[in-house]
Amino acid sequence: MLGRVLNTHQQWICRQLADCGYEVARQTAVADTGREIQQAVREALSRADLVITTGGLGPTSDDITRDLIAELLGKKLREDAAVLANVEAFFAVRKRPMPAKTRVQALVLEDAIVLPNAHGTAPGMAVEVRPNPFRAQSGWLVMLPGPPRELRPMFSEQVLPFIREKLPLANALVSRTLKTTGLGESVVEEKIAGPLRSLTDAGLEIGYCARTGEVDVRLVGRGVDAGRLVGEAEGIVRRLIGGHVFGGDDDQLEEVVVRLLTERRRTLALSESCTGGYIANRITNVPGASVVLLAGIVSYSNAAKQEFVGVRAETLAAHGAVSEPVAREMAEGVRRKTNADYALAVTGIAGPGGGTPDKPVGTVFIALAAERHTFVLNPVNRYDRETFKYVTSQQALELLRRTVLAR
Amino acid sequence: MLGRVLNTHQQWICRQLADCGYEVARQTAVADTGREIQQAVREALSRADLVITTGGLGPTSDDITRDLIAELLGKKLREDAAVLANVEAFFAVRKRPMPAKTRVQALVLEDAIVLPNAHGTAPGMAVEVRPNPFRAQSGWLVMLPGPPRELRPMFSEQVLPFIREKLPLANALVSRTLKTTGLGESVVEEKIAGPLRSLTDAGLEIGYCARTGEVDVRLVGRGVDAGRLVGEAEGIVRRLIGGHVFGGDDDQLEEVVVRLLTERRRTLALSESCTGGYIANRITNVPGASVVLLAGIVSYSNAAKQEFVGVRAETLAAHGAVSEPVAREMAEGVRRKTNADYALAVTGIAGPGGGTPDKPVGTVFIALAAERHTFVLNPVNRYDRETFKYVTSQQALELLRRTVLAR
Repeated sequence: MLGRVLNTHQQWICRQLADCGYEVARQTAVADTGREIQQAVREALSRADLVITTGGLGPTSDDITRDLIAELLGKKLREDAAVLANVEAFFAVRKRPMPAKTRVQALVLEDAIVLPNAHGTAPGMAVEVRPNPFRAQSGWLVMLPGPPRELRPMFSEQVLPFIREKLPLANALVSRTLKTTGLGESVVEEKIAGPLRSLTDAGLEIGYCARTGEVDVRLVGRGVDAGRLVGEAEGIVRRLIGGHVFGGDDDQLEEVVVRLLTERRRTLALSESCTGGYIANRITNVPGASVVLLAGIVSYSNAAKQEFVGVRAETLAAHGAVSEPVAREMAEGVRRKTNADYALAVTGIAGPGGGTPDKPVGTVFIALAAERHTFVLNPVNRYDRETFKYVTSQQALELLRRTVLAR
Repeated sequence: MLGRVLNTHQQWICRQLADCGYEVARQTAVADTGREIQQAVREALSRADLVITTGGLGPTSDDITRDLIAELLGKKLREDAAVLANVEAFFAVRKRPMPAKTRVQALVLEDAIVLPNAHGTAPGMAVEVRPNPFRAQSGWLVMLPGPPRELRPMFSEQVLPFIREKLPLANALVSRTLKTTGLGESVVEEKIAGPLRSLTDAGLEIGYCARTGEVDVRLVGRGVDAGRLVGEAEGIVRRLIGGHVFGGDDDQLEEVVVRLLTERRRTLALSESCTGGYIANRITNVPGASVVLLAGIVSYSNAAKQEFVGVRAETLAAHGAVSEPVAREMAEGVRRKTNADYALAVTGIAGPGGGTPDKPVGTVFIALAAERHTFVLNPVNRYDRETFKYVTSQQALELLRRTVLAR
């Protein structure tokens, strides 16, 4: 709650559950104090069939969740021999002495199902809350340790199978996300909401998530008809705005582009000015990018534009570095020097300084040199510096994706 | 709640508040349904003096927070002329037609203080809940749009000053973070914990946060003596491990390096292989970087290493692309071609593929060419691909920082 640590548990756990058709109703984070933790667990048990807690099971003085939940549920703690053996083995394998405090991790709630921790010392626990002092229905409470590399395998290997057994679903949820670029959020809705009306009337839910340079369309169905509803909806969306759909669910545009170029055995070169290596960085985040990317030139200065990608001094003098002719020469120059099939070039004014009345901050020229033609876009991307780079890189990668697909 | 989006708001907002001495008691995420949103806001208003909501203020049909909160508080919505003008200007500047639905974003709660959005279309709002139907004390409710690039500047520039005015603190907390690189977490603690003992006895709190390639030391004081305690502690830490402290609080290493090079009027060139443009990207994220960075070459292929930075074919053949001689030639070559004062070069194996018994995944050579000498580091950075890039870039920038400082 001091903002020093990013909570990635929510997304990860919600994702695992959603993929199995379970819906998470609420996620809560509270400070490490007894009152706050007990209150949050009490409230959750009053609402939900399943409550999952993370963290607070370790050996240090601020790891108090185990004791607090035992107290809340009026249960005793017992030392578990198998857990103690695991803790001892953990230190023995690492040839380190076992600190006395670590023994507390062998304490488990008296009637808990123990979830062994293969990657750490604190075990997880699952407890049936029956009778449930906070709600008419009984519930399940699952406690997991906080470190992601301990929590994640425990959740996948032990908790998910356990949930499927104890809380089987009658009506699972089906969800599908389509990632689009090049259209604003309300334009996307204008184009698809009407044609999807009969499906939404039948229970389909549509969600829109506007990210910078990208709008996600999420299609959710519930019940026996869920698969059909979502499938039909996806077909309609693709028919209406398919040219803007670059992927589904977890696809990143750079992955889609690297996959496409790899499949078609095409190569790429980059000449970046205002994006300063960001496009190269995104491309090289994809494993296997070295098959596709031959070189990227961050031609930040005018001298670099001349030296490395062969932009002519006269072009720079006549049109300025941020201009369509310079973008063209950057793309064509780096394509020629590397013999790449495609070359992307970007020149613009990221800001905050450097704008003029004629070329305000946000002005960009994006050029794509291909075998027979050089394409140029001229958007105005008025954002902070990092967002500017991201949006510009989305436009450049999307221009590349569409051009490669159109061949 | 479907796990498709990582919630970074909690950390960021908690951090801003903690840095001003405010403590956050609880963070809640709920599904996008009317019942859940209203219930969460109602509960929060029953507990806290200040409730902040994020998201749900946009133009699409699932953006329902505005309406739900108006209903919950029994308030009417009115169209705000200034907000409408801002929405219209947003589209005009970008040369895009304004979709009809976007107009809904000009609706604000009747007695809300409107928080203008300089980076998007949905404004924020602050409403005093007085009388508070859910608690004896009155409270404040602040609504902010979800996109981080809109929320963050609004929060820093408008919400924080507003909170300081409306909810002043009697006993603020003083905190100072010193960012170090090059030492492990336990080594940092070994070096400073003893000498700080008299201050911790007097109430100073020390926190250590190990991040990849970096350890943060957080010094926290409370009460009237807080400033003195933290100030003295900072002096002691700097005396003991000052060479490893590259900045404070929110300083980024790339900012420190650009500032240093700018002050000394020195220039930089880059030749990156395994980091794939990531160092160039970090440097060019800093406004004013164009004074410092002349060019960056992402010499991903061997041909690019020869063509753009003059690595010799014999060197590549004799030692392989991932080797000290190639790193040296990359740095010295790009320095010569650009006439930069300093040139950094990186070659290595990011993985997951490409390792050999001799040069396992994670092997890196970092070379820094300066006027009289070329320095080379050879760490082994075994991480996932993106962490590999980050850690390697930290090492390279830290080598540069220390070398520039030593002159």
